[in-house]
Amino acid sequence: MSGNTFGTLFTVTNFGESHGPAIGCVIDGCPPGMALSEADIQQDLDRRRPGTSKFVTQRNEPDSVEILSGVYEGKTTGTPIALLIRNTDQRSKDYSNIAQSFRPGHADYAYWHKYGIRDPRGGGRSSARLTAPTVAAGAVAKKWLKEKFGTAFRACMLQVGEVALPFEDWAHVPNNPFFAPVADVSRYEDYMDALRKAGDSCGALIRVQASGVPVGLGEPLYDKLDADIAYAMMGLNAVKAVEIGAGFDSVGQRGTTHGDSLSPQGFRSNNAGGILGGISTGQDIEIRIAIKPTSSIISPRESIDTEGNSTEVITKGRHDPCVGIRAAPIAEALLAMVLMDHALRHRAQNSDVVQAVGPIAAEAPRD
Amino acid sequence: MSGNTFGTLFTVTNFGESHGPAIGCVIDGCPPGMALSEADIQQDLDRRRPGTSKFVTQRNEPDSVEILSGVYEGKTTGTPIALLIRNTDQRSKDYSNIAQSFRPGHADYAYWHKYGIRDPRGGGRSSARLTAPTVAAGAVAKKWLKEKFGTAFRACMLQVGEVALPFEDWAHVPNNPFFAPVADVSRYEDYMDALRKAGDSCGALIRVQASGVPVGLGEPLYDKLDADIAYAMMGLNAVKAVEIGAGFDSVGQRGTTHGDSLSPQGFRSNNAGGILGGISTGQDIEIRIAIKPTSSIISPRESIDTEGNSTEVITKGRHDPCVGIRAAPIAEALLAMVLMDHALRHRAQNSDVVQAVGPIAAEAPRD
Amino acid sequence: MSGNTFGTLFTVTNFGESHGPAIGCVIDGCPPGMALSEADIQQDLDRRRPGTSKFVTQRNEPDSVEILSGVYEGKTTGTPIALLIRNTDQRSKDYSNIAQSFRPGHADYAYWHKYGIRDPRGGGRSSARLTAPTVAAGAVAKKWLKEKFGTAFRACMLQVGEVALPFEDWAHVPNNPFFAPVADVSRYEDYMDALRKAGDSCGALIRVQASGVPVGLGEPLYDKLDADIAYAMMGLNAVKAVEIGAGFDSVGQRGTTHGDSLSPQGFRSNNAGGILGGISTGQDIEIRIAIKPTSSIISPRESIDTEGNSTEVITKGRHDPCVGIRAAPIAEALLAMVLMDHALRHRAQNSDVVQAVGPIAAEAPRD
Amino acid sequence: MSGNTFGTLFTVTNFGESHGPAIGCVIDGCPPGMALSEADIQQDLDRRRPGTSKFVTQRNEPDSVEILSGVYEGKTTGTPIALLIRNTDQRSKDYSNIAQSFRPGHADYAYWHKYGIRDPRGGGRSSARLTAPTVAAGAVAKKWLKEKFGTAFRACMLQVGEVALPFEDWAHVPNNPFFAPVADVSRYEDYMDALRKAGDSCGALIRVQASGVPVGLGEPLYDKLDADIAYAMMGLNAVKAVEIGAGFDSVGQRGTTHGDSLSPQGFRSNNAGGILGGISTGQDIEIRIAIKPTSSIISPRESIDTEGNSTEVITKGRHDPCVGIRAAPIAEALLAMVLMDHALRHRAQNSDVVQAVGPIAAEAPRD
Repeated sequence: MSGNTFGTLFTVTNFGESHGPAIGCVIDGCPPGMALSEADIQQDLDRRRPGTSKFVTQRNEPDSVEILSGVYEGKTTGTPIALLIRNTDQRSKDYSNIAQSFRPGHADYAYWHKYGIRDPRGGGRSSARLTAPTVAAGAVAKKWLKEKFGTAFRACMLQVGEVALPFEDWAHVPNNPFFAPVADVSRYEDYMDALRKAGDSCGALIRVQASGVPVGLGEPLYDKLDADIAYAMMGLNAVKAVEIGAGFDSVGQRGTTHGDSLSPQGFRSNNAGGILGGISTGQDIEIRIAIKPTSSIISPRESIDTEGNSTEVITKGRHDPCVGIRAAPIAEALLAMVLMDHALRHRAQNSDVVQAVGPIAAEAPRD
Repeated sequence: MSGNTFGTLFTVTNFGESHGPAIGCVIDGCPPGMALSEADIQQDLDRRRPGTSKFVTQRNEPDSVEILSGVYEGKTTGTPIALLIRNTDQRSKDYSNIAQSFRPGHADYAYWHKYGIRDPRGGGRSSARLTAPTVAAGAVAKKWLKEKFGTAFRACMLQVGEVALPFEDWAHVPNNPFFAPVADVSRYEDYMDALRKAGDSCGALIRVQASGVPVGLGEPLYDKLDADIAYAMMGLNAVKAVEIGAGFDSVGQRGTTHGDSLSPQGFRSNNAGGILGGISTGQDIEIRIAIKPTSSIISPRESIDTEGNSTEVITKGRHDPCVGIRAAPIAEALLAMVLMDHALRHRAQNSDVVQAVGPIAAEAPRD
Repeated sequence: MSGNTFGTLFTVTNFGESHGPAIGCVIDGCPPGMALSEADIQQDLDRRRPGTSKFVTQRNEPDSVEILSGVYEGKTTGTPIALLIRNTDQRSKDYSNIAQSFRPGHADYAYWHKYGIRDPRGGGRSSARLTAPTVAAGAVAKKWLKEKFGTAFRACMLQVGEVALPFEDWAHVPNNPFFAPVADVSRYEDYMDALRKAGDSCGALIRVQASGVPVGLGEPLYDKLDADIAYAMMGLNAVKAVEIGAGFDSVGQRGTTHGDSLSPQGFRSNNAGGILGGISTGQDIEIRIAIKPTSSIISPRESIDTEGNSTEVITKGRHDPCVGIRAAPIAEALLAMVLMDHALRHRAQNSDVVQAVGPIAAEAPRD
Repeated sequence: MSGNTFGTLFTVTNFGESHGPAIGCVIDGCPPGMALSEADIQQDLDRRRPGTSKFVTQRNEPDSVEILSGVYEGKTTGTPIALLIRNTDQRSKDYSNIAQSFRPGHADYAYWHKYGIRDPRGGGRSSARLTAPTVAAGAVAKKWLKEKFGTAFRACMLQVGEVALPFEDWAHVPNNPFFAPVADVSRYEDYMDALRKAGDSCGALIRVQASGVPVGLGEPLYDKLDADIAYAMMGLNAVKAVEIGAGFDSVGQRGTTHGDSLSPQGFRSNNAGGILGGISTGQDIEIRIAIKPTSSIISPRESIDTEGNSTEVITKGRHDPCVGIRAAPIAEALLAMVLMDHALRHRAQNSDVVQAVGPIAAEAPRD
């Protein structure tokens, strides 16, 4: 495969460029008979879309999705679901000055050397705008998993640049533009305001969670559930690190501490992050991802042009100073796509396995 | 695919169980005409094999590899290379007492619920023994990449459980049983001795590096090079976290710091870890992985049996108290497999691209 | 994969239904730097499109293609090429009477039992209308193969129902609505007129050829070039048989006759049809396919309804009485997609093989 | 994938060369819990193995299969099943004289140009010997399909070279070395004796059938069941043509004849060959394949050497004069592999579809 298709049985083929006529995807493998409408998808797209607060890019895209196929009389038919989102607010001239040079930290350099040609408008194919079709596809996966298993997804912001606010409650997340699980985001706002004035950008730390996950998902030896989650998360634009469960803390833990003990009522802790041996255990899946600072900044940077000569790059145009702010719904979508793909793979091979699992409950306090 | 095949064009299909008759793999996609013998593969297997120090499992396996196909008169023919390693030192009776209960932190529980049947001898399919065929396949990838591009791989131990020793020099790595880049590993030895006496296990932090990487490897949107590296690393037994380049430090960095500036002589730093936009830049690829403590420990743990009743589990038998100790050659192999797969994918699509890249050199000090 | 993606490296993901809002495809894997415009694709779509003569369906679809992505300033960028064709002339009411019963010989029955739901309008997903995106994708493959290797594709009609006219010359093919290689098609016209009056339909025999094929395409053991061609051709709607080279005549041939002898000037015959051991030889690739009669006919047929009760089915609406008439450009497109996919696969693995083949020429008379 | 893996969910990765140390395969995707032993596989291998009559190659290979993995206490565990067959009767010197020239009609020429290197001993990778692992894998698929759905497979010889004997009864097939469905095979024997004296070879026509096939298998648009069957059959060594159901006879049929009418008791005929719209209907699957004459013959043939110079080729060694004689069990195996793969794919996507199909019976007389 040529890299633009995600998944094995629930596949999503993504297309489009930031400033081309349209972006979208084709979902193949959604089981037939599920009710599906544009509205089911639009709600997640709206959570991700640009222009919704002063802390994100001011590009104004409605990101209206059109279902082109695969749905008949409001139900999926088992055939491919093509989703189309027209681009409407391109300002390509903003990019004319960077077409011949490389932004430090940006995909410019790598795309140029790989393909020998690149669409510089808005980052072309490398733009975070291409996460919109992923979010749309993830909405389909979320709906199926919810109806089938009661699986639920949520993500939140744990740290904005140098500012980390302690986790308070998931209930706060929808109430602020940072997806932060805290009541008061004024420290994030102040930080972002200062950052904008400085012409700089910052990173972010995101937590992603799935609950109500069926036991048994994952196909070791190689296509382990955690392997595919890491693939999905590291493939999200700007992500530089992925942890599952205890993550890097596992290094300093001992076996007597790390291994989640089991009682008849369920697991007593969740250092595993919901996955053992590459297979889901029924515990919550817990992930953390690190997102790097945006490379398109107005501060001048030392760089070279396509001829290899020294130059200075200043990136104008409309950009997210902290691309991590809009990452929460995207990360949820990716996790949902992975779980749905593995749910289909699992039942292909193991439909006959009696899965009388009994109650899976974490007695450890849940935040 | 059913999960036991790694890669898209350079594919490795792994088979076997810890205590079955044999383990091995079939490599498909190795280009023809490369000199290859068992000795080329054996050297990496020997670096990984058990029983070589008192800090690893005492199971005595020679791990002798036999090439069954794909090589004619000492050269690869472009047809599948099947590699066979016979198991010789099984003591299956060690496992009889854990066949009906689940070790906390072990794949036991997940395998049982997924398949409804499991081979409990030595962990069966979930055993770290199955990394041997991966190492064998990785040796083939390493050889091809070295001959073709001069790519070199190395990995080392940065932390054993609660003890972290500062990086000194790569040259120390082959001289101690920990793959540690330090002259004096006595603190690691003392720590491991105490751990064994306590009947406990510990985690590890591993650094992996590739240098001499060609520019342009990676297939965004989804099959980014970093995505596939994360898949490979997180899929390695016991890994719970993966960082590339600055990793989690990216969260607290600003754009003016994180983005590696470019001069005509090359990149001035390597926060990217060698990958931008999911495509290799020619910088060194830099990875860190966290490995959790072994779950098979002699200390008693609270658990349940297959009927869901409370029980206490003590794991006898021969186990690595720190499975991370032998992880270095495995991580190198996985990275090599990813890079070779992407090298083949890149030339499929981009053979015509003139890749006059010019010198890629990191001016930042290299350790 | 879920069945709607064709190919391994040059992949085409097809979407849409006959009477939905749109049909189309996403091409992934086209190398960067090739000039491409809608006009390059439209010419083949126009050869396939309905309503162009009285011998095909009277549905009037312009089949105008829009390139949504993957092309920048007139050149491919190496990113996915999404192609969109809006449906414009649906008359869904024609199908209301057959929604609850199964046309003998039609996919109705199988779709119903597979998915438990089906879009009956115009055959929904099973309609031959879905060959349009295939033709569009094939046009891209043809262009690349022509520019790269000089490969050329052509197909013609050898038999319409019970009437077979001897092959005269390829030059006649574009000059009649049957794609027939004959100067005078009046016998085909008369036959089709009589068939229409009888309310019946008929089959067809199509010849497909590629010339200028590079040597070495095909990936045995399983992904042989002829295997993938057979997959492509048998997957074309209504195809029931595929021959390559001597085909069924091979059964009665002897080894001394069948094996194409070689001289320094090339092969002396082409019983192989251009493929030996699953790999292209440089000879012309020669294929014949049998196409069954259309199942949607006005003559009453005995059938059952979705409840399993007896019923009689008469299919009104606009249908091709000989679906084979429009098959020629589709078969060319499928062959081009197979060859391009294998060309990319071949150079992935064998870029280093010196392919100084020397002249490949068939001395046997060519028709 | 690099061509040596068959299938999507039930995958078979084949390895080995005719005169290397061993041949075999790795089966991935077999569901857990099925009883499996070497004896289950050996019986089909014995039907295919050489040296069993004077009409096939005299190479004496026991083809004893060893299960290396994936089976625990006599049951499949859901992990890869590796199968190993050692080569024991190689006479590689027979091939020294043809290493530098190309047998007309043989894969020699194509392998040489593709890979730049080839193992000439016994045809190396292109040998029909590599169908043995396919037969072994097919035996696993047959067993699962039989236990799950009652599916049964059989194949027979309809024509040996220029001699076609009318079909009499399936019961005769095991009673003669030709797999012929006739009581008296003396005409085949006489024909083969004359052929051997003439130093020539001949083709064959094989019929393959599956009964008890579940409804709903096949994944259109592209991965249709008939498409994948054609891929499997055309990929069998020496096959040049594939028909399903009415095959080439469809060309001359009319819609009123071809479409199998339906009654509450089932289909009234089987022109479809068990497949409509690329999906199984529950009718028997009916296939015919044409096999070309063996290219390794003792009669001198005009050819060229690897330098392109004229030469004459005479092939000594032990060869099947009619490779089609042993094709019946191989074709059955391939069909079983396709059906099992599609059965798994179908239940991945459509487990929820209520498939109350009712009786599927063909009233048309069955031979």
